[in-house]
Amino acid sequence: MKIHDVPGFPNPLRIRIALAEKGLADRVQFVPVDLPGAENRQEPFLARNPTGTVPVLELDDGLHLAECTAITEYLDNLDGDPVLTGRTAREKGVIHMMQKRAESELIEPIGDYFHHATPGLGPTHQAYKSPDWAGRGEWGLRRREKAVAGMRYFDQVLRDQPYVAGQAFSMADITVLEGLVFAGFARIPVPDDCTALAAWRARVEDRPSVKAPA
Amino acid sequence: MKIHDVPGFPNPLRIRIALAEKGLADRVQFVPVDLPGAENRQEPFLARNPTGTVPVLELDDGLHLAECTAITEYLDNLDGDPVLTGRTAREKGVIHMMQKRAESELIEPIGDYFHHATPGLGPTHQAYKSPDWAGRGEWGLRRREKAVAGMRYFDQVLRDQPYVAGQAFSMADITVLEGLVFAGFARIPVPDDCTALAAWRARVEDRPSVKAPA
Repeated sequence: MKIHDVPGFPNPLRIRIALAEKGLADRVQFVPVDLPGAENRQEPFLARNPTGTVPVLELDDGLHLAECTAITEYLDNLDGDPVLTGRTAREKGVIHMMQKRAESELIEPIGDYFHHATPGLGPTHQAYKSPDWAGRGEWGLRRREKAVAGMRYFDQVLRDQPYVAGQAFSMADITVLEGLVFAGFARIPVPDDCTALAAWRARVEDRPSVKAPA
Repeated sequence: MKIHDVPGFPNPLRIRIALAEKGLADRVQFVPVDLPGAENRQEPFLARNPTGTVPVLELDDGLHLAECTAITEYLDNLDGDPVLTGRTAREKGVIHMMQKRAESELIEPIGDYFHHATPGLGPTHQAYKSPDWAGRGEWGLRRREKAVAGMRYFDQVLRDQPYVAGQAFSMADITVLEGLVFAGFARIPVPDDCTALAAWRARVEDRPSVKAPA
């Protein structure tokens, strides 16, 4: 398998952690994508993934899989023991619910704020910035506020259970962690009183897969 | 099981089709949510689902599952034969990739256009409308253009294969169908030259689960 990605970026990190969790790191060859040069917005990359996002998993038979949830589902089910995405119907349901909330309550509003209310990755990647979204615009600030509300939501969840989807580490923890890493990129601080979220983060960052991702 | 939803709305339709596909319709009791009255934005509904979306699946033991992908994963895996979300690692990967694209390329831009560039569901549901997003604003038009580009993408996919994720009907077909239904709500027409998409839609709308959802 090959993974086309950018080392150190938030979404690629999700898959590198999943690979380490599943013991699959040495089955993968990494191919760097020149994101600053906008390689992902041009052919031949767009033939691999028409939406232009990284990472992309390329299988030996030529199939390309994009989107972190989809790549994680694939990797996690290869050995028939899907610990990251859920073994039972109930586990799958809860993990996918929390996975989606990590995206809608953290990653998406942080992305909107980062790309539209800050210089983001520069004009090659986000040529259009809504004037209303600019730094002092109401929309940018609302998206930032939504991301902070998302942090408070996950803090609340983690007051009652050790991991985002319950008693076990899962794909949803990886996605929330990525949200916090991305918030750091975008300079949106986590509120000091989110102590359960901070304790969870310290615990997750102590995992071998997070200390040394693929 | 109970499902809290609004009959006839696009997201609830996704789960009603999934229930019919899985033969689970008679195991579910439907509880209507007063969306025009914004019941979903207040307690006690927010205790069921803090993000305020419908549908929500309530299990007999009190667990609430929100988010269509999560509810579909749960329902589809109850009988151990996940035909809608994929039986193999590869099927799961492709279905989740196309599922995510149906959301990012159709449902999300249509939603932005509908809520910010048209009257949408009214001020109770979307009090803030970005002035730049208003009808003639560049952002609203860009989101509408993105939705149309999404229709063209799925049309292209369906020129080479009978269903959105390959040879079999799946969750991804249900989500693309919802996207087209939602586009109708928002009055974004499908381009006439999307003939493969139109043929697929006719084929999918002929399924018993779509003709008579739960």
